[in-house]
Amino acid sequence: MGDTDFAPATENYAERVRESFSKQGMMSHMGAEVTEVRPGYCEVVLPHRPEILQQHGFFHGGALASIVDTAGGYAAFSLFDADDGILTVEFKINCLAPARGEKLLARGEVVKLGRTLTVTKGEVIAVEDGNETVCGLMQQTLMRITGRDSVKG
Amino acid sequence: MGDTDFAPATENYAERVRESFSKQGMMSHMGAEVTEVRPGYCEVVLPHRPEILQQHGFFHGGALASIVDTAGGYAAFSLFDADDGILTVEFKINCLAPARGEKLLARGEVVKLGRTLTVTKGEVIAVEDGNETVCGLMQQTLMRITGRDSVKG
Amino acid sequence: MGDTDFAPATENYAERVRESFSKQGMMSHMGAEVTEVRPGYCEVVLPHRPEILQQHGFFHGGALASIVDTAGGYAAFSLFDADDGILTVEFKINCLAPARGEKLLARGEVVKLGRTLTVTKGEVIAVEDGNETVCGLMQQTLMRITGRDSVKG
Amino acid sequence: MGDTDFAPATENYAERVRESFSKQGMMSHMGAEVTEVRPGYCEVVLPHRPEILQQHGFFHGGALASIVDTAGGYAAFSLFDADDGILTVEFKINCLAPARGEKLLARGEVVKLGRTLTVTKGEVIAVEDGNETVCGLMQQTLMRITGRDSVKG
Repeated sequence: MGDTDFAPATENYAERVRESFSKQGMMSHMGAEVTEVRPGYCEVVLPHRPEILQQHGFFHGGALASIVDTAGGYAAFSLFDADDGILTVEFKINCLAPARGEKLLARGEVVKLGRTLTVTKGEVIAVEDGNETVCGLMQQTLMRITGRDSVKG
Repeated sequence: MGDTDFAPATENYAERVRESFSKQGMMSHMGAEVTEVRPGYCEVVLPHRPEILQQHGFFHGGALASIVDTAGGYAAFSLFDADDGILTVEFKINCLAPARGEKLLARGEVVKLGRTLTVTKGEVIAVEDGNETVCGLMQQTLMRITGRDSVKG
Repeated sequence: MGDTDFAPATENYAERVRESFSKQGMMSHMGAEVTEVRPGYCEVVLPHRPEILQQHGFFHGGALASIVDTAGGYAAFSLFDADDGILTVEFKINCLAPARGEKLLARGEVVKLGRTLTVTKGEVIAVEDGNETVCGLMQQTLMRITGRDSVKG
Repeated sequence: MGDTDFAPATENYAERVRESFSKQGMMSHMGAEVTEVRPGYCEVVLPHRPEILQQHGFFHGGALASIVDTAGGYAAFSLFDADDGILTVEFKINCLAPARGEKLLARGEVVKLGRTLTVTKGEVIAVEDGNETVCGLMQQTLMRITGRDSVKG
């Protein structure tokens, strides 16, 4: 993933992504961080810790969903104008394998950038002893918000 | 929701749901609790706190996804045999409105109980000043796991 | 389904739905018809015929998808202004049971009506010897198109 | 797409796909044909004709769904044992652009092959004056059926 070929609308797109991400209480509470931003692409890492697991000791499905929703959202946000905000319209995730290991990587990538709606795809990689396994597959729709202060990015 | 008419496979189904839920580090870390369990139905509450919000101050989409995935999963689990485990195969969530207020309620309900696969629907309600707004709509597939110790509920 | 409580934006909403439906080559080619229109609700029937089956003799998954996508779309369209067009943004369908019998009924219902995006839920009922079985469950996002002649309804 | 690296379970996998496809009344009624089969990959073509359009003259969303559901299903089926049947569990499709042109190409590809469940991704390409535009994006879950005569492939 990440071989997209989009032009960013602003020079400081990566800075804007990281600044917006830092305002997400949910991400820091989970221990997630942005590891890479390119135009139309974003990667988020989530290290293993007991606070984000489910009853069998795997990463919680909600943890996968949270980081890949976020990665997809910022992949789109990286291509937006400075005044645009963003909202998730919907997303769908398939869990392909138990998510275990030392960390998860969520990668989001823009498939279609639109004036109103943007579609991304994403995947969640479980890294165990250095080996990568795709454990989540996502498809997502995002909405660009313009001229509404309350939801600006 | 919750007008389902399923027979539980075990007498202590509610206890089993609550015990399994209590092992989910993710749920307690977010501050979520099970508020109701009936055969084929489960409700989870998530009180407002900064640690589960996104950049605009609304509840994070991942928080909605986490609790409604969990509510749907336990709605199914409530109908399973004592030895069965459960895994989320996939789910899809539509965000209908900004999720704000004093708390979220996630309600999951079994639509079709199967030997291998079970399908649920769910919704997330935002409670603001006592008024309820549906802010999330979910559809989910779950897999029953039998005879695999590693993923027992 | 169908207990929605929406006010139609136009008096002749049912007529507009039926007229638009009649322009869908796909629906008449499959043999589908609109059986009921109410504000925010639409039902489509698809009688059994060999031309819409799959390799095992059940109704084809694409046939289920086609009629429930259409039912959801017209459920939304029934609430739109006379000049508005409509496009499907995305939908997701779960196949709950083999779809067999003398006919299928697809029912679409608006969950959230929006200025730009509208969300519906739907189900497909297989009628066999007069007995109804839910064989499909759908969740859908639609976009209202205003002022674009090329896609007017 | 189509750079998968799966080993077919049978020598005559392509023949089995084409034979099963030929039994789908829905596909021939729409005018769709299999254009390519490789292990874990299948492409279906749907030439333009009035019988598969919607009210604005674009290909019907149900037509896109039908051929990409089928392409994904046969991508999985190509990796199954000779006695295995297949059923669609669920799929989700995003419509990225109006589907117009001389034909549609649906491409399905296996992401994760499982004993019980297999996950595929797919896309629908609209070919207009020889130019290709991605107009549909799909994610799908399939179930392998073993030892049930009624649904054998």
